[in-house]
Amino acid sequence: MAASSTDPMVGEEANGGVTMLPAVEDKYGGVMTEMSRPMDPSAFSALLRSSLSNWTLQGKKGVWIKLPRQLIGLAETAVKEGFWFHHAEKNYLMLVYWIPKQDHTLPSNASHRVGIAAFVLNHKKEVLVVQEKTGRFKGQGIWKFPTGVVNEGEYIHDGSVREVKEETGVDTEFVQVLAFRQTHKAFFEKSDLFFVCMMKPLSLEINAQESEIEAAQWMPWGEYNKQPFVQNHELLRYMTDICSAKTNGHYEGFTPLPVSAPDLQGNLYFNNRDLSSRQ
Amino acid sequence: MAASSTDPMVGEEANGGVTMLPAVEDKYGGVMTEMSRPMDPSAFSALLRSSLSNWTLQGKKGVWIKLPRQLIGLAETAVKEGFWFHHAEKNYLMLVYWIPKQDHTLPSNASHRVGIAAFVLNHKKEVLVVQEKTGRFKGQGIWKFPTGVVNEGEYIHDGSVREVKEETGVDTEFVQVLAFRQTHKAFFEKSDLFFVCMMKPLSLEINAQESEIEAAQWMPWGEYNKQPFVQNHELLRYMTDICSAKTNGHYEGFTPLPVSAPDLQGNLYFNNRDLSSRQ
Repeated sequence: MAASSTDPMVGEEANGGVTMLPAVEDKYGGVMTEMSRPMDPSAFSALLRSSLSNWTLQGKKGVWIKLPRQLIGLAETAVKEGFWFHHAEKNYLMLVYWIPKQDHTLPSNASHRVGIAAFVLNHKKEVLVVQEKTGRFKGQGIWKFPTGVVNEGEYIHDGSVREVKEETGVDTEFVQVLAFRQTHKAFFEKSDLFFVCMMKPLSLEINAQESEIEAAQWMPWGEYNKQPFVQNHELLRYMTDICSAKTNGHYEGFTPLPVSAPDLQGNLYFNNRDLSSRQ
Repeated sequence: MAASSTDPMVGEEANGGVTMLPAVEDKYGGVMTEMSRPMDPSAFSALLRSSLSNWTLQGKKGVWIKLPRQLIGLAETAVKEGFWFHHAEKNYLMLVYWIPKQDHTLPSNASHRVGIAAFVLNHKKEVLVVQEKTGRFKGQGIWKFPTGVVNEGEYIHDGSVREVKEETGVDTEFVQVLAFRQTHKAFFEKSDLFFVCMMKPLSLEINAQESEIEAAQWMPWGEYNKQPFVQNHELLRYMTDICSAKTNGHYEGFTPLPVSAPDLQGNLYFNNRDLSSRQ
């Protein structure tokens, strides 16, 4: 289970007299070390202890250790030194430790997934709908809006355009967020934010995604609405009412606008019609 | 490093002839096993292999292993059997494995943090503002809206009421989401959704939170607006314009409504004025 104690990296470091883990400083007074090569747990323990002593003397606050999946055997050592888990992705675990005596001010872990449903209506008042190959609507003959997950680092409007293109082959332009829904326990204790997005089609030809989509079509809006699946589902009834109101020009959602702050770029989504009409 | 091989749990199971990890079934054809007692890694490896064989025969799909922090020493064994990381919280790591040959349909990991800023205006057109003890506005004399993080499992409207109460002692009622902002790299690769929430004060007495808040007060809206901090910040200028428009009755945000779907409860946030006026 343990790597050899003659591991080259440790060897090199010992020969060079280096007793600190390599680390980069963050802008919050913390340090991050990313482990990349196997190390004997006892050597890692010694390095970690001397590094923590030094970082304490230097007045550092948060200490982050990023462990790739194949080096997960080192996690136990860090936990024994007082580290806990901050978050994990498929291929790494991020551990963290707080040096000061005061309560930590480390960022919270991500708590929500973000999904979208795309309302794409063409000039003939036909809506773009799909039947899925997997999931709970599989094989039930239900036609639904294209849906998908917004990735970390992806804007809601970009994610919507991407998902519609992937599932149906149709190019679209993002118009507005018409509404959003928050639910809980999407998986384990995590929550879910689901945005209903109005999109304008830029192309009409359908090319359904083979892996996920059973069928895709342009369907008259009235037909979509009449499906018992829609009528018996409180949330979908509201969604279709909102989409109908939007189609008739009676409804305003939130439009994105790129805005900058001194330290970051982002998109602000707001009721642009109401804000503009005021001025 | 390793637990003793005479560990009671393994012993009991061996005596009883049990060669499977205890697991509960999920509703997606998967199984979840939560490790709770120390185990020798080689014993865990043997149990995991025989369990995986059995679950494969049973046609199971996803296999989840929840490892509490103190049992992280078992993670390496699971990784060697092909498991990867799904997510982690402070005190546990969730590993996952997919038995079928097809691509997995496991839920995505959480990608976003959710925060709120609370716009609380009293009958004298004074806004509730705070100065923070920590963070990047510390010691700069800047008065800002109360802000906070919405927890997993918490509704945006509940989180807003809670944060205002915690930071200022003021009781409020949630009115609307006026706008929201999406940014990226809030920490590492994770993204951030930040909701500007209009709240109605139900009490006026201020009782500032000692640990986080330097000072709190009701400030004339015009004075808040005039701060260079607000005027030099594109996002805050938009936010204050939106809040002013709302105060003057010209702006409609998204109001939450509890809605149910066959399989879950949630809140739908939408432009209620536009939807109602249509009918």
